[in-house]
Parts: sequence; structure tokens; C-alpha cells
Amino acid sequence: MAMEGPSNAFPMNGGEGPHSYSRNSSGQRIFIDRARKLIQEAVAEHLDMEAFSSSGAFLVADLGCSVGPNTFYAVSNVLQAVEQKCQSLGLDSQILEFQVFFNDHVGNDFNILFRSLPQDRRYHAAGVPGSFYGRLFPKNCLHFVYSSFALHWLSGAPKEVQDKSSPAWNKGRIFYTNANKEVIKAYAAQFAKDMEVFLCARAQEVVRGGLMVLTFLTRLDGAPHSQVFANRSLDLLESCLADMVNKGTISEERLDEFNLPMYYASPQEMKEAVERNGRFSIKKMVELVEGLAEAYPLTGKMIASPWRAALEGLLKEKMQFGEEMLDELFDSFARKHDESSIFEFVRESSITFVLLERSTTN
Amino acid sequence: MAMEGPSNAFPMNGGEGPHSYSRNSSGQRIFIDRARKLIQEAVAEHLDMEAFSSSGAFLVADLGCSVGPNTFYAVSNVLQAVEQKCQSLGLDSQILEFQVFFNDHVGNDFNILFRSLPQDRRYHAAGVPGSFYGRLFPKNCLHFVYSSFALHWLSGAPKEVQDKSSPAWNKGRIFYTNANKEVIKAYAAQFAKDMEVFLCARAQEVVRGGLMVLTFLTRLDGAPHSQVFANRSLDLLESCLADMVNKGTISEERLDEFNLPMYYASPQEMKEAVERNGRFSIKKMVELVEGLAEAYPLTGKMIASPWRAALEGLLKEKMQFGEEMLDELFDSFARKHDESSIFEFVRESSITFVLLERSTTN
Repeated sequence: MAMEGPSNAFPMNGGEGPHSYSRNSSGQRIFIDRARKLIQEAVAEHLDMEAFSSSGAFLVADLGCSVGPNTFYAVSNVLQAVEQKCQSLGLDSQILEFQVFFNDHVGNDFNILFRSLPQDRRYHAAGVPGSFYGRLFPKNCLHFVYSSFALHWLSGAPKEVQDKSSPAWNKGRIFYTNANKEVIKAYAAQFAKDMEVFLCARAQEVVRGGLMVLTFLTRLDGAPHSQVFANRSLDLLESCLADMVNKGTISEERLDEFNLPMYYASPQEMKEAVERNGRFSIKKMVELVEGLAEAYPLTGKMIASPWRAALEGLLKEKMQFGEEMLDELFDSFARKHDESSIFEFVRESSITFVLLERSTTN
Repeated sequence: MAMEGPSNAFPMNGGEGPHSYSRNSSGQRIFIDRARKLIQEAVAEHLDMEAFSSSGAFLVADLGCSVGPNTFYAVSNVLQAVEQKCQSLGLDSQILEFQVFFNDHVGNDFNILFRSLPQDRRYHAAGVPGSFYGRLFPKNCLHFVYSSFALHWLSGAPKEVQDKSSPAWNKGRIFYTNANKEVIKAYAAQFAKDMEVFLCARAQEVVRGGLMVLTFLTRLDGAPHSQVFANRSLDLLESCLADMVNKGTISEERLDEFNLPMYYASPQEMKEAVERNGRFSIKKMVELVEGLAEAYPLTGKMIASPWRAALEGLLKEKMQFGEEMLDELFDSFARKHDESSIFEFVRESSITFVLLERSTTN
């Protein structure tokens, strides 16, 4: 139950301004809509409502909820699906009480989240601060866990890539896209380690037979990292930062010390992590590839803005960036997108929907 | 589960500045220390730990927690008492997991509360926004409810005292201290009504045999309102506001419309409310009168500052007060205390500690 250190606590940008996460999450909405149908199916086919309804309360956690309209929309999808399931079984869904835990890093703007809770919600709301790479709830209490667009964030960048004496030292780079094999290995290992911590914590918190729906950005099985859209995009960010080093705006050392705490795993890597952990069974795993091209924003500015919302906190803390430097960085980031051939790489990115069920046997 | 309206959502002053609640709650600390011993006794004598420990998790709610050092101190007292009880019964308290729900109005500064959570806490923390005059949690989930210095806040000032056509119209006044009988009756009725709503909600949320510890400011049984310290103090606030009307700083109408949502009940009124509700039994009811004189701050400034922390939000919203007007008001409020004979009335105030147990039969 130890608190997260500052190194891995970078929530999405708060507030409601132009660079806030809440104003820059419309692209994700499309996939939440797609996930909606999958959640309905998951609940209809796999949720043991008769076992759970006897407790009188149905507890849902949204892990890495951030703040924005998507937060409440996603939760209402889950609750609707559960209510429909109750009705189809002839259970009185009015008797069932819902409690929804909104979780994110301690630096997330919970004040805004609480103020924007829907007035007509039919659930008891609670906020839970802390990293989901650790325990957050008592044992055996959650019936449904939901996490959307959060698990490609690692608990932190791998230590080795910041260690000058390591073969995985990632000098001059901020990510693994075009890095050497050791760096890629370190990132993949960090993902595997983080997923094990995540699954161990959830295995304790989720009741036997409880469900977990995870959607996150992935790369297609077998696709090289350098062909994935997000990786290519972050490559451009790297080159913008290198420009700033050349201009003397930031020091070379600072760039060397900075590495993004993200990893776009393949569905296969996710599958292996779940199987290694052994406490959940995969009930469904679907690629939401279709339409990715239409869903993705198509101008540099439309890409730069959500990245800024996601990375501003990190850049402020780790790189001591002020507003002016952020403007400079993300303006040139947007420009480089428009000047590049990046939009050709959309097809190698993917979003994976995984439905896990907490095993009843171990 | 409807959200509270803006009319009754006035949390203590946030932040960490000189007028913040967190810097102005040392007087309360003395009583939390006194309550500590009483909580230990309550848990030792009345908590059915054997029944609760089987569930594996012990759920505590702090209702009206506000933000400040007292918040976490009070909770740690409760948890220590429960751990001691476990040890005395030979139960392994390490197996037991705690979840603590910090509740306050949606406008409370939960961001600061979350950031200041003790690093070494041995409980899972959650924030629950909303008025405790309504449901906040699922049925039958809480084992221990704690509320300190919160229940003398009403859900709102009684409607009648703001109604020109009512005999209880409280013209020219902001409180009931020197008001006519109808006004006092309206305030007493509001307290009774609010307590019924509070107890009904908690009766659903607290497990059978669960405990509830409430400490709140009261007046001694039989003491006239006009002799109670807090009432006398607010009388001076009223006269400061009247001065501002005379000077033309605020309009007469605005003063007429403003009434404080507080009531200092007698222990007898509390007892009647619990008995009327019928779902809890009173296991202990103690007056913490001794030492009230030493505990209370003894200069006008020391009194004005915590009142400012408590009332600033209300005055900003209801009276459109800015910082300058607040400075003027609370400077003159402090001065009037020093010039008055108010410190003689300390003895008629009290703090009541009530231990309630959720009945197992109804």
C-alpha cells in the first residue's frame, strides 16, 4: 500500500483548457463506442450475475480513469450492460446498488472529476488515488474492472535505459522506436514486469468469477516497432527535442536522462503476461483495427494536441519545461507530422480489447 | 443518490494558506485526543470483531472529513483501536485489510487531501464526494463510521427563516441566537429533520452491529442559546454584518437573505433524534466539557481565524464577498471579541461524544 513515487505519477493534463485531456480525448470516444458492444456481450455471456446479485452491491473500478466526458460514458456502458443482464434473468436491477471507484494517479484532478459527476447517476461514486501497479482495494471486493487507454503507460521508464553503464543506455533518445535491441528488450521486460504486478494486485481484489475489460493501444503481432503509428509519432517528438538540444534550449544531458514510460505491446505479449500470471482466463481478445485510419486525427495539430495533454506533466517535471518551451516543442511536433509521411503507418497500430475472468480455482 | 444543490455545499476553506481550514484546526485536535481514549474503549467494549474479521476487510468512513492534519490523525486512532482489539482476541490483525472512505462536500479540496495522505498508511484510501445528509455508500458495507465536528452543520438554513411571509422570517439576523421563538423552532426542526435523514442513510449503510462515533459541538442541556459561546460569537458576526449594512458595503436585503446553516443541539435533542429513528442504540454519550476554557482560543484573532476558514466559502457564494470584504468582516469580528465579555460564556458550550451501535434486530 505504499504510495507511488513522483517518478511514475504523471496524470493526464488537468483542468478544462485547450491543452487539457478532457478537451483532447474525442478520438478515444470512437473506440469506447466500439468497446460498448463488446462489453454488453461480455456481461451477457460471462458475468455470473446470480452469484453477485446476492451481495446487494456491485462494485466497479475504472483504473486510469483520467478526467473527461469519456470517464463517465464508459462507466455508464458497463452499468447499463449489468442492468440489462439482470433484466434478462428476471432479477430486479433496482435492488442492486452500484459503487464505482474512479482511480488514477494522486496528481489527477479529482476535484474536477467529482464536480463533473453526472447529477442523475445511479451509482455511489468514490475516487481512489494511486498507481494501479500496486494494490488499491481490499481483497475480493471488485466485480468488474475496466481500464481504457491506460495500460500502455508503464510504471516508469526502465531503469537500465537511464544507466550510462548499461548496454541498454538510451543516449540521445526518448523512446525505443529506433533504439538498439537492448533498449527494446528493457522496455518489453518492463511491460512484462508491470503487467505481472498489475495482474497480481487485481487477482487479489477481484472476486472469483469477476470480469476485467482492458482496452489499450497495441501494435499488430509481428509488426516492427518502427512501423507503428504511435512509435513513429514519438520519433518525431524525439527529433523536436534533439532540435532543442542543437539550439541550446535544453542540455544534451537532460535529453539523455529523459525516457518515455510507455510501451505498445503486441496482443501476443499481453496473452503471455496473462498466462504467466495464471489467475485470469482470457475470454475474449479482439483487435479493433478497422477504421483506425478514420478515427485518427489527420493533421499534425490534431495529433500534437492530445500528446501535449498526455505528456505536459511529465515534461514539466522531468525536463523542467515551462509553457513557452511546451508551445515551441508541440508547434514543431505538429509541423513535423504535416511534413512527414507518417499517416501511411496508421495500419500497423491497433487497439486491443481483452476480456479476462478471475479464475474460480486459484 | 442525487447530488447536493449548491445551497448546502460549503466545505471548509481549502488550500494551505493562512485562512485555510488545515491551518486553523488545532483547537479541535485537543478534543480528538480526548475522543481517542473513548474510541479505544468503544472498540474494546462494543465492536464485534470476530463477526467482522471473517469478511477480511474492515471499512471505515470519516464523514465531513475536511482537509487537514486532524483528518488522518483521527482515522489512525480508529484503526489502532481496531488492531488492538484484534490482538487482544488473538486475531491476526495483519490479515485484516482496512479501507477508509474520506467524505466531504463535492467542493472539498480532495486533491490536497489525496496528496497529503500518509505515505506509511496501512489502509486503502478513497474519497467520497457528497453531502452526508443522503446516501453515500452501498447497503451494509461500513463497519465503523466516524464524524467529528461536522454534525452541527445543517443541510441548509431552514427555508422559513428566509421566507418573508413566514412568522419565522429572520429579518436583519443571520442566526437564531437572539431571534424570536419561531426562528429557533425552525432551526431545531431542521436539526431534527437532518438527523433523521442522516440516521436513515447510515442505518442502510452500516452493517448490523457496526459502530458510529459522532463528536460535535453542543450546548449543555437546559442552557439558553444566548448563553452558548458559539452562539454569542456568531452574534458578534451578525453585528459586524449589520455595521456593513449601515456603511452601505452590503445591502439590507442581502443580509436578510443570509442565514447560517448551523445548529448547536443539546445532548437531549440528539438523544431524541436517535430514539425517534430507532435503528441505532446509544452505547455511550459523554460531555467533553472539562477544559473547554483552556482549549478555546483566547484572543479575538484566534477565534476569528477558524471561523473565517469555516465560513469563507459560504460568504463568497451567498453574499458575493470578495477578499477585501472578508478581511474587513473578520478584522472587525476579531476586534469585537476582544472588546466583549464573550469569554465568560465558555462554560455553556460543550462537545458531545456519542457512540451508536447499529441495531441487529431492525
